Amino acid sequence: MEIIKIYKNYEKLIESELEVRGWIRNNRRQKDIGFIDLSDGTCFKKIQIVYDKDTKDFESIKKIHFGSSIKVIGKLIASPKEDQKFELKAKEVYLIGDCQEDYPLQPKAHSKELLRSIAYLRPRTTLFQAVFRVRSVLSMAIHEYFQKHGFLYLHAPIITASDCEGAGEMFQITTQDLDEIAKSGKVRYEDEFFGKKVGLSVSTQFEAETFAQSFSKVYTFGPTFRADKSHTPYHVAEFWQIEPEVAFCDLEGIMDIAEELVKYVIKYILKHCKDEMEYLDKYVENGLIDRLKKVLKCKFKRVTYKECIDILKKSDKEFEFKPEYGSDIAKEHEKYLTDYFKCPFFLTMWPKELKAFYMKQNEDGTVAGADLEMPGIGEVFGMSEREVDLDKLVSRMKELDMKIEEYEWYIKLRKYGTCKRSGFGIGFERLVMYITGMDNIKDVIPYPRVHKSCDY
Amino acid sequence: MEIIKIYKNYEKLIESELEVRGWIRNNRRQKDIGFIDLSDGTCFKKIQIVYDKDTKDFESIKKIHFGSSIKVIGKLIASPKEDQKFELKAKEVYLIGDCQEDYPLQPKAHSKELLRSIAYLRPRTTLFQAVFRVRSVLSMAIHEYFQKHGFLYLHAPIITASDCEGAGEMFQITTQDLDEIAKSGKVRYEDEFFGKKVGLSVSTQFEAETFAQSFSKVYTFGPTFRADKSHTPYHVAEFWQIEPEVAFCDLEGIMDIAEELVKYVIKYILKHCKDEMEYLDKYVENGLIDRLKKVLKCKFKRVTYKECIDILKKSDKEFEFKPEYGSDIAKEHEKYLTDYFKCPFFLTMWPKELKAFYMKQNEDGTVAGADLEMPGIGEVFGMSEREVDLDKLVSRMKELDMKIEEYEWYIKLRKYGTCKRSGFGIGFERLVMYITGMDNIKDVIPYPRVHKSCDY
Repeated sequence: MEIIKIYKNYEKLIESELEVRGWIRNNRRQKDIGFIDLSDGTCFKKIQIVYDKDTKDFESIKKIHFGSSIKVIGKLIASPKEDQKFELKAKEVYLIGDCQEDYPLQPKAHSKELLRSIAYLRPRTTLFQAVFRVRSVLSMAIHEYFQKHGFLYLHAPIITASDCEGAGEMFQITTQDLDEIAKSGKVRYEDEFFGKKVGLSVSTQFEAETFAQSFSKVYTFGPTFRADKSHTPYHVAEFWQIEPEVAFCDLEGIMDIAEELVKYVIKYILKHCKDEMEYLDKYVENGLIDRLKKVLKCKFKRVTYKECIDILKKSDKEFEFKPEYGSDIAKEHEKYLTDYFKCPFFLTMWPKELKAFYMKQNEDGTVAGADLEMPGIGEVFGMSEREVDLDKLVSRMKELDMKIEEYEWYIKLRKYGTCKRSGFGIGFERLVMYITGMDNIKDVIPYPRVHKSCDY
Repeated sequence: MEIIKIYKNYEKLIESELEVRGWIRNNRRQKDIGFIDLSDGTCFKKIQIVYDKDTKDFESIKKIHFGSSIKVIGKLIASPKEDQKFELKAKEVYLIGDCQEDYPLQPKAHSKELLRSIAYLRPRTTLFQAVFRVRSVLSMAIHEYFQKHGFLYLHAPIITASDCEGAGEMFQITTQDLDEIAKSGKVRYEDEFFGKKVGLSVSTQFEAETFAQSFSKVYTFGPTFRADKSHTPYHVAEFWQIEPEVAFCDLEGIMDIAEELVKYVIKYILKHCKDEMEYLDKYVENGLIDRLKKVLKCKFKRVTYKECIDILKKSDKEFEFKPEYGSDIAKEHEKYLTDYFKCPFFLTMWPKELKAFYMKQNEDGTVAGADLEMPGIGEVFGMSEREVDLDKLVSRMKELDMKIEEYEWYIKLRKYGTCKRSGFGIGFERLVMYITGMDNIKDVIPYPRVHKSCDY
C-alpha cells in the first residue's frame, strides 16, 4: 500500500495488516527494538516502522543500510506519540535492493553544492522531495488555470530558424561532423538536416501570437534556451517558460490575468502542498507561507515608470545607480519600490528604448509594457500589449537594424485580420523559487544546465 | 463576450444586447441582408451574425473581407433554423483588422499539403481548429490522469551529454562558429558552452528512472528529438513524449496503467471535445467515435510474442515478410493480429535481440517488454520492466559494445536501493493521430520539424 493512502485512511486501517515498500531514510537501532523511517515518495511524510524481537530476522534488519529499498509486512497501530498518529509494527522486513557502502548520501544534512554534484540522487533528500513536488503541483496549477479559462495549450517548436527577440545568444543545432568541417575547411549548410542554420528557441511568444489570432486565448509551457554564460543564482541555459497570449486584450486586461494567475497558483500550492510548504517555511525561508498569504490579500497596484522614477528621485536613499528618466530600473531600485508599496505592483509604460521591439508604441515614446515586481524578489516577469500595426512594427524593426526577412510570417499576422493582443512570459523556475523560497535556480530544476556543466 | 459563453448561456441571453469580437470565416451578402460566420476560437462553433439595412453602414459591412477581425454589437435572437439555436442581429459592425487581398486562405477547402506550407495560418481553418483543440485537451487529460494518481511531473533536461538508448541519430548542439572551425581547421570542444559535446535528448526514460527511485511514480511530458531523415507520415524530428516510470511495479502492473490511461484519455476527449470529434468523425474518419468507444469496452488482451508468431504461422495469409521466431513483427503482421483479436492487445515477452538493452532479461532469452497494438494503427507505444540487476545490466551493455562510462549515473541507480521498476513511452503525436483520425503526423503538430524543413 502506498504511504499516502495510509495517511489518507489511517483511521480505518488501524489494526490492519499492511504491506509497504520504500526506501530507508533512517534506521535507528537499539538493543531490543529498532525504528525505520520509510519513504516511498508518494507523499512528503514518511512512515515509522517499528521492529523488535518478535519481528522475523530481527538482528539482520538492524544491519540494513540507509538508502536500501525494503518491503515491510506488519500491523498498523495507533502511536503513543503526539506528533505521529500511527506506526507500522513489523512482522516481516525484506531487503529488496541494498544500498552499497559508497552511497554519497548519509542521514545528515548535506550542502546544496554537494547535492548539485549528485543531481540524480538528491530527489531522495527531504528538501528536494519538497521542492520537486511543489514544482510538479505548480505545473498542474498552471495548466488548470489556463484550461479552466478556455486557453489552448500550444506546443511551440523548440528548433527554429528565427531568433525571436534577440533576447540572448542562441544555441546552434547541427548534424555536421565538426571534425570533418575542420578537416575539409568547408561548412555545408545545405547538407544540414534542415537545410539551413537553426537553433534552439529562446521564446515561444511569436508562435503563441499566431495561434492567438485564431483561438483568441492560448498559452505555451515548455523549455526554452539561452546560451547565457552568467554565473548567478538566477541563470540557467535551459528553463521552462509559460507564455500566454490573448487576442482582443490590452495591457490592463493582461495585467488582470497575470494577477489572477499568480494568486490562483499560490492558493493551489498552499492547499495541495501543505506538508511541503510547512517544511520549506521551517527550513528554507522563515515566514514563507505568510509572505505568500499576504500576496493573496493585496490588490496589485499599477504604477508607471515615470511615477517610479519620481519616487526614487525623491527618496533619501543613496543608490549605487542614480535613478534617471530613461535609465533602467536596477535591482536596488526594485527593492526600494517594493518596500515602498509593500505589495506586488505592475511597473508600466516604459521608455521604448528599454523594452523589446514588439511592444505597442504609445504616442509619448513609451511602450505598453509592464513588469510585475514582487516584494523580496523584484521583477518576476514581464508582459506587454503587442504592436499590431504593420507599419509601426516594421519601422521600429528598421530603427533597430533587424533583419525584416527573418520575421516575415510574424509581420504578416498584421496584414491578415490583425487585432489588439497582449501576453506575458513567466520563467517557470523563477516562479518555483518565489514559491519555495529557494535562493538558487539550480536547486529548483531537476538537472540544471549551466555554463560548463551538463551533468547528472 | 466570448462565443463559448454565449453557447453556454444562450437561453438566458436571448434578447440581450451583446458585443462579440472575432474573425470572419464567411461573409455571404445579398441585396438587403448579409450573414457573417464569426469565430473567435474560444469554441469550435461559430456564431451567425445577421446584418441588414437597419445595421449601421450596411453597404460597407458587405465589403469586409474574409479573414478580417471585427467587433459586432447586436441583439441575440432565437433563430428560426433547426440546427442553429440563435443568431446575433447586428446593430453595429466595426472592422478591427482588415485581411488583405493576398491572404492565402479562402472560404473553400484547401489541401493539407498547401496548409502545411502556411503553418502559421492553418489554425484558422475548421479542421485545424478541431485538431489543435483536441491536442490541447488531450495534453490536459494526460496531466490529469497522472496527477490524480499521485505521479510527480518531471521536467527532464533536453540538453544532454548521454545518448540514452541509441534510439536514433542525435542532433548536436554547439556554440562554436562553424565557419571559424572551417577557417582555423580546429574544433575546440573545451570552448563549447558546456565544455563538451552535447546534443538534444532522444528520451527521458533514464531521468525518469532516477526520480522514480525516490518518488515511486513519476512521468515526463516534453519534447524529444531524433535526426531521422525518414519521409513518412509517421516521422518528425521534434515530437512530444510522455514517459511514466513506476517503482515496485512489474510488467503486468505497467500494462494495467497503460490500459487505464488510454481509456481515461479517450473518455476525456469524447466528453470535452464533443463538437470537434463529431466534425472529425464526419470529415476525417468515418466511424472515428465508434472506433474509440469500442476500445473503452474491450479488456486489452496480453499475448506473448511466441503466441503471436504461432498465430501468424498458422494463418493462410501470404505475408511479404514470412513470420519467424526471432524476427521482428512487421506492419502487415500487426494488421493481421489486430484484426484477429479485434481489440487492442499487449504483445509481450520479446526475444531480447529485438528490444533495448535496459529491459529486464528473463531466463529464456526473452525480455519483459510489451508493445500495445491497436486495431487500425498497429503499435502505439512500448513498455517494459527495467533490468534493475547491476551485473545483468552491465553484461548486456558489454555484449552490445556500449560505452559503460557514459551511463555511470544510470548504472549506479542499481547500487543504491534498487527496486523493481517499469515504464512506458508514448509518442504524443501518434496518440493525437489515433484519437483524431488524422493520417499525417505533420498535421497534428503546430510547426512540424522534418528533414529539410523548419518553417512557419
